Amino acid sequence: MATLGDIGVSALINILSAFAFLLAFALLRIQPINDRVYFPKWYINGGRTSPRGRGGNFVAKFVNLDFKTYLTFLNWMPQALKMSETELINHAGLDSAVFLRIYTLGLKIFVPITVLALLILIPVNVSSGTLFFLRKELVVSDIDKLSISNVRPESIRFFVHIGLEYLFTFWICFMLYKEYDTVATMRLHFLASERRRAEQFTVAVRNVPQIPGHSIADSLDHFFKTNHPDTYLCHQAVYNANKFARLVSKRDRLQNWLDYNQLKFERHPEKRPTKKIGFLGLWGERVDSIDFYKQQIKEFDKQMELERQKVLKDSKSILPVAFVSFKSRWGAAVCAQTQQSKNPTLWLTNWAPEPRDVYWRNLAIPFVSLTIRKTIISISVFALVFFYMIPIAFVQSLANLEGLERVAPFLRPVIELGFIKSFLQGFLPGLALKIFLYILPTILMIMSKIEGHIAISTLERRASAKYYYFMLVNVFLGSIVTGTAFQQLHSFLHQPPTQIPRTIGVSIPMKATFFITYIMVDGWAGIAGEILRLKPLVIFHLKNMFLVKTERDREKAMDPGSVDYPETLPSLQLYFLLGIVYAVVTPILLPFILVFFAFAYLVYRHQIINVYNPQYESGAAFWPHVHSRIIASLLISQLLLMGLLSTKKAANSTPLLVILPVLTLTFHKYCKSRFEPAFRKYPLEEAMAKDLMDRTTEPDINLKAFLADAYLHPIFRSFEEEELVEVRVDKVRVDRHQTYAENAQTRDDLSSSPPHYVHQPTSPPQHSYQPASTPQDVYHHGIAPQYEYNSSSLHYDYHYEAEPWTSGD
Amino acid sequence: MATLGDIGVSALINILSAFAFLLAFALLRIQPINDRVYFPKWYINGGRTSPRGRGGNFVAKFVNLDFKTYLTFLNWMPQALKMSETELINHAGLDSAVFLRIYTLGLKIFVPITVLALLILIPVNVSSGTLFFLRKELVVSDIDKLSISNVRPESIRFFVHIGLEYLFTFWICFMLYKEYDTVATMRLHFLASERRRAEQFTVAVRNVPQIPGHSIADSLDHFFKTNHPDTYLCHQAVYNANKFARLVSKRDRLQNWLDYNQLKFERHPEKRPTKKIGFLGLWGERVDSIDFYKQQIKEFDKQMELERQKVLKDSKSILPVAFVSFKSRWGAAVCAQTQQSKNPTLWLTNWAPEPRDVYWRNLAIPFVSLTIRKTIISISVFALVFFYMIPIAFVQSLANLEGLERVAPFLRPVIELGFIKSFLQGFLPGLALKIFLYILPTILMIMSKIEGHIAISTLERRASAKYYYFMLVNVFLGSIVTGTAFQQLHSFLHQPPTQIPRTIGVSIPMKATFFITYIMVDGWAGIAGEILRLKPLVIFHLKNMFLVKTERDREKAMDPGSVDYPETLPSLQLYFLLGIVYAVVTPILLPFILVFFAFAYLVYRHQIINVYNPQYESGAAFWPHVHSRIIASLLISQLLLMGLLSTKKAANSTPLLVILPVLTLTFHKYCKSRFEPAFRKYPLEEAMAKDLMDRTTEPDINLKAFLADAYLHPIFRSFEEEELVEVRVDKVRVDRHQTYAENAQTRDDLSSSPPHYVHQPTSPPQHSYQPASTPQDVYHHGIAPQYEYNSSSLHYDYHYEAEPWTSGD
Repeated sequence: MATLGDIGVSALINILSAFAFLLAFALLRIQPINDRVYFPKWYINGGRTSPRGRGGNFVAKFVNLDFKTYLTFLNWMPQALKMSETELINHAGLDSAVFLRIYTLGLKIFVPITVLALLILIPVNVSSGTLFFLRKELVVSDIDKLSISNVRPESIRFFVHIGLEYLFTFWICFMLYKEYDTVATMRLHFLASERRRAEQFTVAVRNVPQIPGHSIADSLDHFFKTNHPDTYLCHQAVYNANKFARLVSKRDRLQNWLDYNQLKFERHPEKRPTKKIGFLGLWGERVDSIDFYKQQIKEFDKQMELERQKVLKDSKSILPVAFVSFKSRWGAAVCAQTQQSKNPTLWLTNWAPEPRDVYWRNLAIPFVSLTIRKTIISISVFALVFFYMIPIAFVQSLANLEGLERVAPFLRPVIELGFIKSFLQGFLPGLALKIFLYILPTILMIMSKIEGHIAISTLERRASAKYYYFMLVNVFLGSIVTGTAFQQLHSFLHQPPTQIPRTIGVSIPMKATFFITYIMVDGWAGIAGEILRLKPLVIFHLKNMFLVKTERDREKAMDPGSVDYPETLPSLQLYFLLGIVYAVVTPILLPFILVFFAFAYLVYRHQIINVYNPQYESGAAFWPHVHSRIIASLLISQLLLMGLLSTKKAANSTPLLVILPVLTLTFHKYCKSRFEPAFRKYPLEEAMAKDLMDRTTEPDINLKAFLADAYLHPIFRSFEEEELVEVRVDKVRVDRHQTYAENAQTRDDLSSSPPHYVHQPTSPPQHSYQPASTPQDVYHHGIAPQYEYNSSSLHYDYHYEAEPWTSGD
Repeated sequence: MATLGDIGVSALINILSAFAFLLAFALLRIQPINDRVYFPKWYINGGRTSPRGRGGNFVAKFVNLDFKTYLTFLNWMPQALKMSETELINHAGLDSAVFLRIYTLGLKIFVPITVLALLILIPVNVSSGTLFFLRKELVVSDIDKLSISNVRPESIRFFVHIGLEYLFTFWICFMLYKEYDTVATMRLHFLASERRRAEQFTVAVRNVPQIPGHSIADSLDHFFKTNHPDTYLCHQAVYNANKFARLVSKRDRLQNWLDYNQLKFERHPEKRPTKKIGFLGLWGERVDSIDFYKQQIKEFDKQMELERQKVLKDSKSILPVAFVSFKSRWGAAVCAQTQQSKNPTLWLTNWAPEPRDVYWRNLAIPFVSLTIRKTIISISVFALVFFYMIPIAFVQSLANLEGLERVAPFLRPVIELGFIKSFLQGFLPGLALKIFLYILPTILMIMSKIEGHIAISTLERRASAKYYYFMLVNVFLGSIVTGTAFQQLHSFLHQPPTQIPRTIGVSIPMKATFFITYIMVDGWAGIAGEILRLKPLVIFHLKNMFLVKTERDREKAMDPGSVDYPETLPSLQLYFLLGIVYAVVTPILLPFILVFFAFAYLVYRHQIINVYNPQYESGAAFWPHVHSRIIASLLISQLLLMGLLSTKKAANSTPLLVILPVLTLTFHKYCKSRFEPAFRKYPLEEAMAKDLMDRTTEPDINLKAFLADAYLHPIFRSFEEEELVEVRVDKVRVDRHQTYAENAQTRDDLSSSPPHYVHQPTSPPQHSYQPASTPQDVYHHGIAPQYEYNSSSLHYDYHYEAEPWTSGD
């Protein structure tokens, strides 16, 4: 296995590659041509206009000629730290702000632990003894001399480790409690200070019973008028628009081809582009491309209009699902939290997600199939988690060079070259694992979609949970057990059940070097790669070259992305797990984790401020998961330490340590009852207070108009409504000033550009765009048109291009 | 181990003792002197008056002289079956009726299974082969020749067993589904047809925050007036009356002594009883007992009145708990199901239990300690379940006579005597186990009380869950594993984890004889003992001899008891487990279980009709537990069969069987979402419908008066209110006729004597008692006075004794 020298080489490689990424980033970000790749958030917020629009010479529009800026290539770091948390919430939403808090929580937890562990444990471990008692093949690395492995069995020094485990557990629980408290308060404050939004008044009702002779709309009206007579306002039916959605995406593709051909013609006006109309354009009659696509789009528009009318008018396309709106937040809170019907599978009510958070396709899933879907997915996840291990095991066995040499002795001369050996041992295992993990999130997201959740935020949380199980079993346990399995398989299979934590525990110190390289590859170089945004950079320039005609197209080509929760949350949780498990066992691993937390914090803060445009705002709904997974890490560390110490014959350790999991679980239960409802339910006290405030400030608002189309499937507002926007602009400008003037006074902290209606990866150019009339404007990932709903009045005078357009992925 | 002969002897003993019990019961029940022991329910319902009050000669009042009745000593059986289920619900409540359905469910499940298993499996097993492949010491009994043990390894016949396991699983799931559906419908119908009751309008609020400068009553009023402005009606504070309760119980003891001495004096008027006032009556001044106790009681009454005033007036004795009442059921349903406050540990709302179901003492437990209490109790239950095994193991080792002979060879001559051997082997193990289990329910009930639940029904369900875990681990698994542990301990400790179900599975057929004896001892003789009611019989006659002066005292001495859910539910569930596990393995066990279900059904039906007086009515809230534990039994049986078959080298069995647990779990999840909310929540649709009906039938009822004192701690209504009752009687009689006349028409099935306010083990003589004025009359176990609230007007003219009285345990 790897020696200290290998670690050094690996560290060097990773630090160099991280610096290379940072340098590349520093050079690329100051080029005006890349401005939209590295600062899209500001374009969306309206804080920045296209550099091409500015004056100056032609070259300066594309390349940065101000050489002074090249000298300060790390100046994004202090800039990223400048924005305060309140500003950050206003700028990017609560989700992003709380996401960053996970990194500061990591720092708060691990800085004191690192200092204490290094100061106390390293001397204890090093001075304690030698590794003489271990068989030769188990003395794997110099790192082990700094770890608990170096302590003689039955040594009294283990009480230092046990004492520190207690101390660390209490410290972590204390920090977790404080953080949960803060986040819950932030969430409640955030919700309380939000302005009026459709989802506050709306409840998603699933499984509306089909009564023969009555339309779904009638049943809905009748049911809610009977059972919520004082608060029921109206409802919005949900249409099954899958066929229509297919047409829209086909039209998008045609539009792209048209754009491409028009651009080609503009650049080479001497030659009109032509194409063959046969299969894949390989044969058939040759026609003029621009005319052809224009004609096709025209036909499609007709077809789509027909289909659209059909869907809206045919009662069969109405799904047994609806968004029911109430006169007050109190009414909606009551309906969302109570059981409506005698048959508990009918009239299922839940808070409606934000309109742009709705995953429309899953609304059509009938309730009966949900149980079956969930079972099937559970089994699939189990299979995926446990049978994915086979390739990982193979990679792990490769990483063991001694094993590789035995298998393929002819490779020995190559492998034995010093540098190659270090490279292979230090870099390969982590990298190979990372590649394996690359395609996984997509699979897990598809699985979550099959489960039938109706909000994108829920889907992402579920995918993230699955990914966490995967990481836990395959990256963490898999690396520990499979790695040693090649040495200990025989003895492992012949051990009684109580032996398992001992077997895993005893392997843990040996795997420290592996995890150190993993942290460097994934946590250091990986995060530096994140800031470079290579993929969006390339795609943006490709689009720019072939599709962009207007400023608005360029806006669409911009891909700000958002924090990739399904992937980053589990990774983060893995780092917590590693830190907590190794804090007592091999404390030398901790500084590597600290570097990760600090560096990733900087990077993500920069990205959140300048790049990401959140797709939805869940109000930090992911926090309970973060909390409970750190608790799970604590439990795992306690169990494994128990196993490890029992092999060390520290006789009294088990009874001493067995109290810890019990205390930790009690703490978890307490936190769950104390804080979790703040993330799952909407208290009536809160709803009533906001209702009362509304009633005094705006007694005669027309709520019905406000809510009327809020939950219309976004696909139905693609065309003509946009044309109307222009007409309504002046009226709207007046309206909005009236409506939100008073509100703005009471909510200073959120009054400028609330982030909630700004999110699309392929967004229209809001800086040259009029704010939409009402929050009716529903946003949907990848299909719907996007309206920027910016309450600051800075950008009202930008040019608005009224052409019909659609967005496509 | 036991042979077929041993089983025969055991069966004979148990059948004989069951018959002896039944004979004794038949003789005792027809003696008029025992009438109140065997027919208390009818006294409480007012259907029977004291036989002493009837005419006839003196002896006939005590001994039955009608010899014809002795000839038909089993005629209680057809009588018990006469009452229809609807009548039963009216007579004894839904809990009792649904409890009986568990037995019929057992019959419905096991009759077809028994027939099929005996017809198909016995021939398959017997004809299959011999037990030649087992080592001598494992061939334990002739029973094994009828079991799966007799099938040759790798035999194709195992597919018959697998097929039947599938068939049985589907059949059981089908029956469970049907039954859950029926019970849920019964519950909803029962709730819908109930008349107006305090708990329908009331919510229990825990953890009311203490705001300095405000009384709890003010905070309550303010909070609910703000957040439930349209529905809030009033609230009832809860007082900490622990000191007062102590005084009450002391006074009860004095009253008993007074009664005893007065009775003594009446019987021997020549000598006034005297006592010494010193320690334990052993020394000190000798005084007249009657005067002494009268004086003492007088002083106590004064002291109690003072304490009572103090509690009611001192604001410190008001607990941060309250019963909040609403104007409509809808309002209460909304409040009970929603979160009230931003801080989720404050203002915790839940449905209020029935007034007589409230466990008052736990209302004083602060919320923060609940998590800790639950953790401590979980650990204690775990310890109890797993360390209780040691004595059981000891008993099991005794039951193995061969083992006993090895340990104590000098006992051999005694043991080898044929009859003694059979007796020991057939009777002892089951009996010893039963004695061990005797003290357990009390401990578990105390544990549940410490957990802090506020309803007696919840306490009983929790205790029953604990008892089930105990039975599962100790009676079922403990018997299987410890029994064989003496033969297989060594090999067991050296097996890998996957081996455990195999080890247990392979021991299962060997334990069939043990469980057959267990069923006969516990299920046959035990149930016959239940009908004899030996303990209440003795206690009643002792009380009759020493304490009873008046008819009312005799009424109090009566102890009808109620179904002992914490003990009977888990036992029942154990029989389901045994039946399901052995259905495929040793089908010869099934007829024994069938006899148990049929016999127990008869006995409990008789007891419920004639004896038990339910303490509360939970509306069959225990059904989800019954359901999920039968599902658990199914899962256990599938796992063990998998283990058993894998040792039989039925190569393809595991993949074939592994689908079953998945299907079973899916079925369980579906049932949970489909039916469980009917048992946990009160749908708004239902609440609204009842509210509307009320509004049309009785538009101007004074709900506030109806609810005013419903949830006053029962201890405060001991004295003066009773004196008021007599005064109010005439008024009430008119009121009640007005109030319930219309309701009665719509609810034929429940109109005669709803059982809800009739329940007390030590009840006052309702047949000579006036119905109370309003449902204000709160019932509390063991302390409170009881008012019969009988809506039939049959018994209005009985004599009412207006003396103040209290009841005591």
